[in-house]
Amino acid sequence: MVKYKHILVAVELDPTCDNIAVKRALALSKVLDAKVTLVHAVEHMSSYGAAYGIAVGADVEEMLIENAQKAMDELGDKLGVPESHRIIKMGPAKLVILAEAEELKVDLIVVGSHGRHGIRLLLGSTANAVIHGAKCDVLAVRIVDGEKK
Amino acid sequence: MVKYKHILVAVELDPTCDNIAVKRALALSKVLDAKVTLVHAVEHMSSYGAAYGIAVGADVEEMLIENAQKAMDELGDKLGVPESHRIIKMGPAKLVILAEAEELKVDLIVVGSHGRHGIRLLLGSTANAVIHGAKCDVLAVRIVDGEKK
Repeated sequence: MVKYKHILVAVELDPTCDNIAVKRALALSKVLDAKVTLVHAVEHMSSYGAAYGIAVGADVEEMLIENAQKAMDELGDKLGVPESHRIIKMGPAKLVILAEAEELKVDLIVVGSHGRHGIRLLLGSTANAVIHGAKCDVLAVRIVDGEKK
Repeated sequence: MVKYKHILVAVELDPTCDNIAVKRALALSKVLDAKVTLVHAVEHMSSYGAAYGIAVGADVEEMLIENAQKAMDELGDKLGVPESHRIIKMGPAKLVILAEAEELKVDLIVVGSHGRHGIRLLLGSTANAVIHGAKCDVLAVRIVDGEKK
């Protein structure tokens, strides 16, 4: 009945973030003998730019992806997730997460869910969208900002 | 890091329901060596009655609780959950689930999340409310109506 064999974790690459969701997923994967893949979505900047009347070029987006890749590699190296299980994609987080989950046929998605209002509103909506759109189970890991676990 | 030691499962007592969330939680609890408590909320009928201009007496609510208790006991007996780990409470599902989670200091709540729209709207809102209000992690188990797992 515990059929989780491949876990997809939505990763935040904020250096102040403790990556509790990733650590929880990795610990769970060891007990369940499951694979873990990390995914991070880099949002398209053009829409932000348009809102402020500025043009954001492809070079800026490229830089964002490079920075994300670097942060992802540091995280993967630190936590022992092989390179082939680290994914960076451009696009809205919920769409990227759901698309990768289907592509990889994972059976569990792990997302962080912030406890503070404000941040909660933003990240909660990704978590909600993932839960509603996912064709598999979703574990929402509660993240209390500033709390070490 | 896998700290789940007590899992609270929100139970539907519909006889057509396969109780996939309960079975998933029980299987997970065996791997993690965790306790499992089942909780079911019986909604107050007075609010429904008021909407249709009819008075719903305490006797009707008592009957609902008795029926729920009977169904819960059948489920608990079938799945091997001891009587002391079966809870029936009156109230809105999300409030009952969150209150019991805090009362019992559980570290994981498991809720079913229906895949079909319509039902999804109703149950999704409970799942959402639980995720946003919970002080612990929440596992949303995807339930595809009519699918056997």
